[in-house]
Amino acid sequence: MLNYLLLATHRTQTMSTSPSKKAKTETTFVDVPSNSDFPIQNLPYGIFSTREDPENKRVGVAIGNLVLDLSVLAAEGHFTFDASFFSEPTLNSFMAAGKTTWDAARATIKRLLSAEEPTLRDDVDLQNRALINQSDVLLHLPARIGDYTDFYSSREHATNVGIMFRGKDNALQPNWLHLPVGYHGRASTVVVSGTDIRRPRGQLQADNKDPSKGSVFGPSRLLDIELEIGFFTGPANNLGDPIDINDAEKHIFGVVLMNDWSGMSMYLLSTFKQWRCPTVQTYIARDIQKWEYVPLGPFGAKNFGTTISPWVVTLAALEPFRTEPSFGPVQDPAPLPYLLDANYGKGTYDIALEVDLKPENGDYAVISKSNYRYMYWNMKQQLVHHTITGCSMNPGDLLGSGTISGKTEDSFGSMLELSWQGTKEIAIANGETRKFLKDGDTINIRGFAQGNGYRIGFGDCLGKIIPAHL
Amino acid sequence: MLNYLLLATHRTQTMSTSPSKKAKTETTFVDVPSNSDFPIQNLPYGIFSTREDPENKRVGVAIGNLVLDLSVLAAEGHFTFDASFFSEPTLNSFMAAGKTTWDAARATIKRLLSAEEPTLRDDVDLQNRALINQSDVLLHLPARIGDYTDFYSSREHATNVGIMFRGKDNALQPNWLHLPVGYHGRASTVVVSGTDIRRPRGQLQADNKDPSKGSVFGPSRLLDIELEIGFFTGPANNLGDPIDINDAEKHIFGVVLMNDWSGMSMYLLSTFKQWRCPTVQTYIARDIQKWEYVPLGPFGAKNFGTTISPWVVTLAALEPFRTEPSFGPVQDPAPLPYLLDANYGKGTYDIALEVDLKPENGDYAVISKSNYRYMYWNMKQQLVHHTITGCSMNPGDLLGSGTISGKTEDSFGSMLELSWQGTKEIAIANGETRKFLKDGDTINIRGFAQGNGYRIGFGDCLGKIIPAHL
Repeated sequence: MLNYLLLATHRTQTMSTSPSKKAKTETTFVDVPSNSDFPIQNLPYGIFSTREDPENKRVGVAIGNLVLDLSVLAAEGHFTFDASFFSEPTLNSFMAAGKTTWDAARATIKRLLSAEEPTLRDDVDLQNRALINQSDVLLHLPARIGDYTDFYSSREHATNVGIMFRGKDNALQPNWLHLPVGYHGRASTVVVSGTDIRRPRGQLQADNKDPSKGSVFGPSRLLDIELEIGFFTGPANNLGDPIDINDAEKHIFGVVLMNDWSGMSMYLLSTFKQWRCPTVQTYIARDIQKWEYVPLGPFGAKNFGTTISPWVVTLAALEPFRTEPSFGPVQDPAPLPYLLDANYGKGTYDIALEVDLKPENGDYAVISKSNYRYMYWNMKQQLVHHTITGCSMNPGDLLGSGTISGKTEDSFGSMLELSWQGTKEIAIANGETRKFLKDGDTINIRGFAQGNGYRIGFGDCLGKIIPAHL
Repeated sequence: MLNYLLLATHRTQTMSTSPSKKAKTETTFVDVPSNSDFPIQNLPYGIFSTREDPENKRVGVAIGNLVLDLSVLAAEGHFTFDASFFSEPTLNSFMAAGKTTWDAARATIKRLLSAEEPTLRDDVDLQNRALINQSDVLLHLPARIGDYTDFYSSREHATNVGIMFRGKDNALQPNWLHLPVGYHGRASTVVVSGTDIRRPRGQLQADNKDPSKGSVFGPSRLLDIELEIGFFTGPANNLGDPIDINDAEKHIFGVVLMNDWSGMSMYLLSTFKQWRCPTVQTYIARDIQKWEYVPLGPFGAKNFGTTISPWVVTLAALEPFRTEPSFGPVQDPAPLPYLLDANYGKGTYDIALEVDLKPENGDYAVISKSNYRYMYWNMKQQLVHHTITGCSMNPGDLLGSGTISGKTEDSFGSMLELSWQGTKEIAIANGETRKFLKDGDTINIRGFAQGNGYRIGFGDCLGKIIPAHL
């Protein structure tokens, strides 16, 4: 928990808190620190166990510095529905239950935690059974992730990458404004915050200019981050039956912070003819992905780890933070009818995001500040496009936004962009700099939606790079 | 079962049975027809339920025209280990148990079914409880597939596609001989034989030559098959720890037939500059994948359905059918050490494969005959390459071979190749022809390893194309 506390302080100092009209109208009897990610307005779901009984995983809700054990509340009949799924080791069954159940669960939990309701407030024995210090729990992956898909839906990010590789005039590829480009990722390597990430090894092109010279073997030298938000799906659609854009939100359970570690953003480099950065060491042109991606897309350079935050923040909690049409991007040309969202302007959310980097024996420093509101394609459109072929989604599938970059240089969501393909140093703490990640570096992604007097946060989304195998 | 019987007859007439030294040494008291896929030498595992109780899924073994219910044998203590996983609705736990348990299970099942052993042979009551007619059962997906990956490992297939799109001199791309190229697929749409496949819809490039004109919406017009074999993984490796080539076989549970339906082999077309076949209707150049794949690889055109056979044939059953170095391909240049398989020559299996096509109201005809022995990269190499970055595999993950094409025109594993990019008609029954699939067409893939007096088969791998949604 030490990191957590350090970061909470750190973030309070460094993240801007824009003024907001979202008022603090609800209070809880639980003591919630003013800078907490988990006020009563949030109530995110996660899977936890205690240090004494690490295998006994069940569903909890974060409130202040505590976890509310929903399996205890369910066993004692506090819910208005069969809530036995709160004793399961993943959220999949609850995710499958659908919006009516989600709403009923949230209403019950909010009531039980409110300052006005005596049931839990005045029952010390129930509190002892149902409320646990976060410092005493282990947090696990919130769901058994059936499939994981990653999109590429930030216009600023796609434009930055396009400028680097094709120049300003051809920055966006022709299909980009017409559909949310995405690819199938690897579900087995999605891990919860706190899991170490081992630097991957793979084949590298032996000669930078001449692929006919074959390959050599070694660790990735250009390990990168991708600042993303992922969303978990709710009820399934049948194979062959796409989800309609007007029903899409019913199929979205909630969101998490996500760091989609990349074997050097290589999957991007790889998709273009050449890497035009002679200033960086020659490894840059011959890392894993450039060599192996032909012709079927990202593989090894994108399957060694994706870190998510442990707490799933529901759309209900984010409702007050929907974007307004006035600051969301305009979709021009208009999408095809199946992607046309009448509420597009309110389709994404104002979630401030921050990337912190800490060297092995150094301090944390902020290397990027971005915002989820920069998304061009929203969650609903991603989900609908994914299913338009008839592809079935299951409860607990994870769909990533793609790297979320803002308009300014300090808001870029990858080190590839922050170092502008390695031509600039990224300042970190203690006078050090980075272009890409070194062994021992820890990355934490933080995010919150700022209300008036409270904020909806996610906890940590943290991973440390450990050295490649010899 | 009508299709099954028709096909059994049909196949007997059309598939060649090459002479083999594998002798028939074991016999069972169960009546096994001479052309059965399921003699006592096979003993493939599947998940079944009865028509009367369709939700009660458990593990069975196919023997002749019967299914042996392993949950009954387990409950009555016939195994030498805790076999409660045979009552589970997927094979994942059994797959996780590892080779020692797999061997023990096979030995017990073989003993109980043998002609010499009285336990089951002479106990009519036990037979009534444990042996069920295949015609009375429903077959389900054998595993909860955590992740599905598709490779591209037939040299003949990759060469054919290369010739079509880049000409003879540049047929194989530079990395192809150095690593098994693959990509992450969609696990949720892997379905068991017999499941209808709805023709997918998606965005098509509006103007064949000018992508700046945007897109239109419609059904895929060039629906294709891919003849493959998939394998299921056994025990997991830890995140960050690759599987060694010498341990790889312990992580492979068994194999299934696979048809990786494709929105027109579009993912192949899409990866090259242009589609050079003016003789086919213009849709050919503007189907789903060409437009959407940029720059991250196959997505919608490869996520609407992958059909597998219900019975998983174990490596133990295939052991007598390992290829000999004399007819396997030679790997030149030698792979990097991590992919170097000292037993490469014996690394794949002699499994005859056949693709049958039946129009809505017509008869089956064979459109391709191929063989798994044509693989260039074997299962072990695919698995090791997949994990070299540290990617973790879980029990029940599925890895596809990629389209398996032979050297001759009648052994190509996709309609793209069989019609040679639409320049030739593929003859089917009743005087009809095809270039790609029409609505109402049924495809069945069949396969077997031929022993002396018996064969190791898979049952059907069958799917029918139903029309796109309006």
